[in-house]
Amino acid sequence: MSQSVQAAPYNELINKAEQAKSAASVMAKMTTAQKNEALRLISAQLIEEQEFILSENAKDLTSGKSNGMNDSLLDRLSLDENRLKDMANALIQVTELEDPVGEVLEKWQQPNELGMTKIRVPLGVVGMIYEARPNVTVDASSLCLKTGNAVVLRGSSTAIHSNKALVQVIHNALKKSDLPIEAVQLIEDTSRETASEMFKLNDYLDVLIPRGGAKLIQTVVANATVPVLETGAGNCHVYIDETADVEMAVSIVINAKTQRPSVCNSCESVLVHKEWAAAHMPELLNALQEKGVQLHGDEETQKFHDNVFPAGEEDWAKEYLGLEIAVKVVESVDEAIAHINQYGTKHSEAIISATNENVEKFIMEIDAAAVYHNASTRFTDGFEFGFGAEIGISTQKLHARGPMGLPALTSTKYIIKGNGQTK
Amino acid sequence: MSQSVQAAPYNELINKAEQAKSAASVMAKMTTAQKNEALRLISAQLIEEQEFILSENAKDLTSGKSNGMNDSLLDRLSLDENRLKDMANALIQVTELEDPVGEVLEKWQQPNELGMTKIRVPLGVVGMIYEARPNVTVDASSLCLKTGNAVVLRGSSTAIHSNKALVQVIHNALKKSDLPIEAVQLIEDTSRETASEMFKLNDYLDVLIPRGGAKLIQTVVANATVPVLETGAGNCHVYIDETADVEMAVSIVINAKTQRPSVCNSCESVLVHKEWAAAHMPELLNALQEKGVQLHGDEETQKFHDNVFPAGEEDWAKEYLGLEIAVKVVESVDEAIAHINQYGTKHSEAIISATNENVEKFIMEIDAAAVYHNASTRFTDGFEFGFGAEIGISTQKLHARGPMGLPALTSTKYIIKGNGQTK
Repeated sequence: MSQSVQAAPYNELINKAEQAKSAASVMAKMTTAQKNEALRLISAQLIEEQEFILSENAKDLTSGKSNGMNDSLLDRLSLDENRLKDMANALIQVTELEDPVGEVLEKWQQPNELGMTKIRVPLGVVGMIYEARPNVTVDASSLCLKTGNAVVLRGSSTAIHSNKALVQVIHNALKKSDLPIEAVQLIEDTSRETASEMFKLNDYLDVLIPRGGAKLIQTVVANATVPVLETGAGNCHVYIDETADVEMAVSIVINAKTQRPSVCNSCESVLVHKEWAAAHMPELLNALQEKGVQLHGDEETQKFHDNVFPAGEEDWAKEYLGLEIAVKVVESVDEAIAHINQYGTKHSEAIISATNENVEKFIMEIDAAAVYHNASTRFTDGFEFGFGAEIGISTQKLHARGPMGLPALTSTKYIIKGNGQTK
Repeated sequence: MSQSVQAAPYNELINKAEQAKSAASVMAKMTTAQKNEALRLISAQLIEEQEFILSENAKDLTSGKSNGMNDSLLDRLSLDENRLKDMANALIQVTELEDPVGEVLEKWQQPNELGMTKIRVPLGVVGMIYEARPNVTVDASSLCLKTGNAVVLRGSSTAIHSNKALVQVIHNALKKSDLPIEAVQLIEDTSRETASEMFKLNDYLDVLIPRGGAKLIQTVVANATVPVLETGAGNCHVYIDETADVEMAVSIVINAKTQRPSVCNSCESVLVHKEWAAAHMPELLNALQEKGVQLHGDEETQKFHDNVFPAGEEDWAKEYLGLEIAVKVVESVDEAIAHINQYGTKHSEAIISATNENVEKFIMEIDAAAVYHNASTRFTDGFEFGFGAEIGISTQKLHARGPMGLPALTSTKYIIKGNGQTK
């Protein structure tokens, strides 16, 4: 009697996650030299196949335009020779970074002569969920490969041709290398259902990293059972204390607000001590207005300037991500700290002050990944911190907080050497 | 015209989580001396109020018995003078541990003269979800307070009188200390609905730590959106290589299996190289049987002994947590590694061998929190590792892996000091 054996229907996500998982165990054994060689090959392949990549990217741009995508998104989606050259160079830069895998973090001997060593190991399989920018495809692959991980990429439908082309190019390069090509997987099904399935793929993924807007990140955090490295949302403040140097305070606020308003480390609210406000608020507000910044302020702030929109609860909590700012006059450093700890997103917070006591209080009591004294919040960045790479800026407290360099893509392992110990 | 203002109905979980969150910011400022003094006061209070605690514990034991609770669970639930004394002593031991909060982890200067410091800070609010053992109430409170955190405790209904009594005693002690009594919160509503609500309390809880059986942990991991520190499940293996010393191999397996079979770091499967098996398998199996261990084995193993139950898939994946073991003959270290990476829970794995090449291969390729050479898996424990405390044994790869001491209850913060830098 024969039984009919029915094959399970092909599931792209499960199939590719399985391949990534089995590639991860090969990746963990690759030497730094083997990994760097693969990155160099990918770098060269990007240039070699640039015509193909750009023609595929053009398809995404065409459908983006016909779907009414705005200029800023089209710009993020768009690739050209220079951007490809930048990607290729970035890969070379990653080869120059220290490989964290294998690093001995601790080493000691127990009284019973057990020899204990704690070393860094790859995480395993990293799941990346991201929005339009196709450069994340190459960037994430590069950092995951360097750290001995496999990666499952899930980009957005708007960049699908670009992403497929880039992953094909990466695979072409990996074929010439010692690394398994299965270490880089692109999920081509960009449906929401598949993304939701990926959120709960605990058997295959060791971590999920969402890269994109606040809504994407919130969706992942609220639905994922795979551990998430939460990146992103930054409602950052600059607090100008009573004794702040005027020129310094104004220049830091202008920089933190206007240098690149669309990013997470830009300043969204300024809190001003009432005494400093009484003497210098008009100067600050004028400087902001000259840079085209729309002003929102509490009642006190409105007294100092004609063009201040009334600010309410929603302004204190808002990431404008554009040329708008909320301004509030506070009684003391304590009020500033309380406001920031209530409305901030634990990203980057700054105090401008010449009063040591207030500075120490602020640094101690503010709950954030990065706390600045007399410097701009814009420095919260893996490159500005000297890490040479950045997977994202963590706003959570577990595993990694603040700008994440290569070590954030690693875990640890204890190695214990004995001579028969049972007690 | 008057509007009727309706107060939100009292919600114990939200109310206590809010209190914990506001206590956490006070806790973060407490000095090591203040925290240690509070722990000493709690220690003394436990002894002072022991009659009250034991009479409340008796209520739980009475209802446990009348509900048919088995002896092993009753034993875990039961308190007596000696167990209270142990708890009181453990609190004193925690005062002697180094306070990780404030520790400078990294310090450097950027080329633009920004002074960078990375320090340890408390996590904030720790949510503990645990089963019958009331000692977790005191233990978790002690470790969370020492690390400057607030804690929200959710124990089981079967220990509710004991837990209420212990938290009341802790509060009585905290009243005499500088620490806020709101830093320790017990959720008295032990319904599943409230636990489920706690899983998603991202606005208040920085981490959830489940302590208990595999089912509890799986439920938390599958449902929580708060970051989880996954602890527990251990399907640990001992692999006996061809060149393993016979006496050493047998004594390690006996220790790893029988010393305390109910715990996560005990051995559940033994893999035996075919050559070693040919020479020594009967000796190993006899030794296990003499200790009362029920044997399950593959076909090869069954050939060496009369009392071996056939082992299948489910045996390889099983945590017996009792005097049972699964035994399998393997062709090589590679087969052992593949088996362990397939069925293990990434907890603790051991190789017994005199062949350096195989040992290095095993250590490198096994994906687990702790990998042993010539020692028992039973050493995976915060105290055995010399940490002086243990919050649990992490089997996940983010944040902390393996036995977790006090630093696992901390996060980090970057402090950046400038002189006006904007670039």
